Amino acid sequence: MTNVTIWNEYRHEQRSEKVASVYPEGIHGAIASFLNEEHTVKTATLDEEEHGLTEVVLNKTDVLIWWGHIAHNEVKDEIVTRVQKRVLEGMGLIILHSGHFSKIFKTLMGTSCDLKWREADEKERLWVVSPSHPIADGIDEYFELEKEEMYGEHFDIPNPDEIVFMSWFQGGEVFRSGCTFHRGNGKIFYFRPGHETFPTYKDKNVQTVIKNAVKWATPTKRAYPTYGNAEPLEPVPGQ
Amino acid sequence: MTNVTIWNEYRHEQRSEKVASVYPEGIHGAIASFLNEEHTVKTATLDEEEHGLTEVVLNKTDVLIWWGHIAHNEVKDEIVTRVQKRVLEGMGLIILHSGHFSKIFKTLMGTSCDLKWREADEKERLWVVSPSHPIADGIDEYFELEKEEMYGEHFDIPNPDEIVFMSWFQGGEVFRSGCTFHRGNGKIFYFRPGHETFPTYKDKNVQTVIKNAVKWATPTKRAYPTYGNAEPLEPVPGQ
Amino acid sequence: MTNVTIWNEYRHEQRSEKVASVYPEGIHGAIASFLNEEHTVKTATLDEEEHGLTEVVLNKTDVLIWWGHIAHNEVKDEIVTRVQKRVLEGMGLIILHSGHFSKIFKTLMGTSCDLKWREADEKERLWVVSPSHPIADGIDEYFELEKEEMYGEHFDIPNPDEIVFMSWFQGGEVFRSGCTFHRGNGKIFYFRPGHETFPTYKDKNVQTVIKNAVKWATPTKRAYPTYGNAEPLEPVPGQ
Amino acid sequence: MTNVTIWNEYRHEQRSEKVASVYPEGIHGAIASFLNEEHTVKTATLDEEEHGLTEVVLNKTDVLIWWGHIAHNEVKDEIVTRVQKRVLEGMGLIILHSGHFSKIFKTLMGTSCDLKWREADEKERLWVVSPSHPIADGIDEYFELEKEEMYGEHFDIPNPDEIVFMSWFQGGEVFRSGCTFHRGNGKIFYFRPGHETFPTYKDKNVQTVIKNAVKWATPTKRAYPTYGNAEPLEPVPGQ
Repeated sequence: MTNVTIWNEYRHEQRSEKVASVYPEGIHGAIASFLNEEHTVKTATLDEEEHGLTEVVLNKTDVLIWWGHIAHNEVKDEIVTRVQKRVLEGMGLIILHSGHFSKIFKTLMGTSCDLKWREADEKERLWVVSPSHPIADGIDEYFELEKEEMYGEHFDIPNPDEIVFMSWFQGGEVFRSGCTFHRGNGKIFYFRPGHETFPTYKDKNVQTVIKNAVKWATPTKRAYPTYGNAEPLEPVPGQ
Repeated sequence: MTNVTIWNEYRHEQRSEKVASVYPEGIHGAIASFLNEEHTVKTATLDEEEHGLTEVVLNKTDVLIWWGHIAHNEVKDEIVTRVQKRVLEGMGLIILHSGHFSKIFKTLMGTSCDLKWREADEKERLWVVSPSHPIADGIDEYFELEKEEMYGEHFDIPNPDEIVFMSWFQGGEVFRSGCTFHRGNGKIFYFRPGHETFPTYKDKNVQTVIKNAVKWATPTKRAYPTYGNAEPLEPVPGQ
Repeated sequence: MTNVTIWNEYRHEQRSEKVASVYPEGIHGAIASFLNEEHTVKTATLDEEEHGLTEVVLNKTDVLIWWGHIAHNEVKDEIVTRVQKRVLEGMGLIILHSGHFSKIFKTLMGTSCDLKWREADEKERLWVVSPSHPIADGIDEYFELEKEEMYGEHFDIPNPDEIVFMSWFQGGEVFRSGCTFHRGNGKIFYFRPGHETFPTYKDKNVQTVIKNAVKWATPTKRAYPTYGNAEPLEPVPGQ
Repeated sequence: MTNVTIWNEYRHEQRSEKVASVYPEGIHGAIASFLNEEHTVKTATLDEEEHGLTEVVLNKTDVLIWWGHIAHNEVKDEIVTRVQKRVLEGMGLIILHSGHFSKIFKTLMGTSCDLKWREADEKERLWVVSPSHPIADGIDEYFELEKEEMYGEHFDIPNPDEIVFMSWFQGGEVFRSGCTFHRGNGKIFYFRPGHETFPTYKDKNVQTVIKNAVKWATPTKRAYPTYGNAEPLEPVPGQ
């Protein structure tokens, strides 16, 4: 049982009838619905006080899931710094789809996180390239999403620690669509699918991947390492 | 022939007689002296206009070497952003010693870059763990520095792409002391040794490593990838 | 609950009084004693029929632990091939100490797996360098073994997928002492400590690491990928 | 100037008119023709004495290029062992296309090296995912081969040290088509394209990649590490 907080920008759903019809309870609601059984799930959205990510909330969060798109710039820098600090302390972080351009992801990666994209209702096929990875547990050799936004290489991220999925797109591109990163004591998983106009988070395979990622990203129980001036453990000349 | 810019904070040398006696021409001068023969070398320091890192200077720089310590916070954020942009465009970056805590390194890593440290005139022994790496070319199985500051694990960096050197310290610690990272189109090398009170940059092995790193970090001639909205290369339903 | 098979060469214990006094029930018995509570544990030794590693035994094994030293060459090639096949199918493999020179480890690594060594009753200090790794769960920043055999770099292995521990040795060497590798569907962990003349496997930290590694190496439930001639999933000219 | 030896099985060209018409001087001849200007190039083929890979030849070889397909099993085990030894000593190795199933590649990888394949005259598009890698120097964001054999994931190799290229195939698959590995002192590059019935090695981009790979894989000048019993570098209790 992990304490999961699902953060959603929650703007598309309130502004677009099309998106609202796909996700009437918001993308955060759709994700919560399949994590609820196994985990303690809370949600938070951009327009709440402190974007719903107070110190109290974050300190109780084991894994934070992030969906954002059109309002990345409205996320306050101090909240970004607070989330970064918690990731370095051990909190897991799952970045979904257009969250690649969120301040928190760019801050943790150190790169532009830019990519190619196209909205053309095209097919995506996600291939498993790390067959023993726990995030791929229960997934066949590949799975398909009939209609998705395309994201294509080059994806400007640091070399991932592990590439779990690689995507094929109908229009001719490939993409590293499931990537893990370790930062400080925290584990990060970037997962590509999830454009707001498609019912991607209702897809069973997508749900399996996110469930697996929550387990994988749950922090271990080690203390945070100590830093700074250190006494010698063996005799040295200067002390 | 690579265009190298050596950036030095250049404060210790002006304030401490001890440091000035070790590096009368500044740490930047000491490093320039062994890169001069092979490369076009310029230097830049904190107290120059724009810290000596104008757009013009950076655009002509293939590899930037960075030494800083007590005045990291005086480096202006806009210059940090400018350097980061150039690294993502392809400029090589070599971060030396206490530069682990520079704004530019922390920005590119996304972590605290913290570590353990101790000034106790103790011995460091650097072991080669990537024997085929070009940065280790010409280096024996290990080399020693009789007196150095200790840096110990945990070193809070992302997993390096390659670990070239691992250090043993007399007082009981180990450290990943030669690490490569790729960010955007640029190559980054972190190299641990170089405390200002020791003549480390006059050590022949240290000089060999920095010379090798300059060659390794020199950018290739590819164009920067293009990002953003992309036309399909194959027929898709939506276009 | 994982099906663990502990394989031990089991020669030192029968030939040396010193070793027998440290491990009266064999190294396999000592390891079984702390894995028994959580897992279904069996043991197998070199002098059993098929070295105790029949098809039936291996097919029921989720994680195989391996300790060998003076009789690597007596392990039959067909058994090595059988174990390799099972690892590629998903069986976890934990190689301990002098198992670095076992046929199975060298076969899976493709390198000499050679290293430096010394028996001098010296101190080893293992530092955690991957603080979020599940194999380091519950371990402090470092732990010490008062007397161990030294293993030193260069350790001739492929770059590990993750380096969990790095060792400091009193005599001046460092070593990548906890390394993960993925091969096919299987996960491999190499863990350095465990010389036969020291009670290393009775150390609480060593036991924690091995317990964690068993959990980490337990296979997921994916089917083995299919290989060979593949029908196209999309229209192609030639078919 | 690197000493390059191009090894070719050289059977298809002698048995098939179609292949002979594409490569009248053999695949080795076609590759030699674009490496000749910069390097000292020799060729060797399966049916020569010791497959043309005598101790003398290998000891003078800096980089070995390998193409094989239908006769992998005819390569003698002792020659495979000899090549492996030279790679661990520092010789570069470039494995092309169907060489993924060669004894030498499987020996160095430790896995089955299996994959999906299809001969359907379909299009391959190779995307650069490591923009700063020297092997991608001079290559655009992607390049296309109008007709190639398909190789698809899962490709059963260890995690590559670097993925330089990822392929998109018309029939719906993706593939890690340009991968680096370090083994001992040697550098290995696997490059996917090159089916015998297509003029792939006459493609300018393919030639650029192979030229770059030769430079990248050329050994450095370090001595081979020493292994075995080691004197302490610092005082220890037992000596």
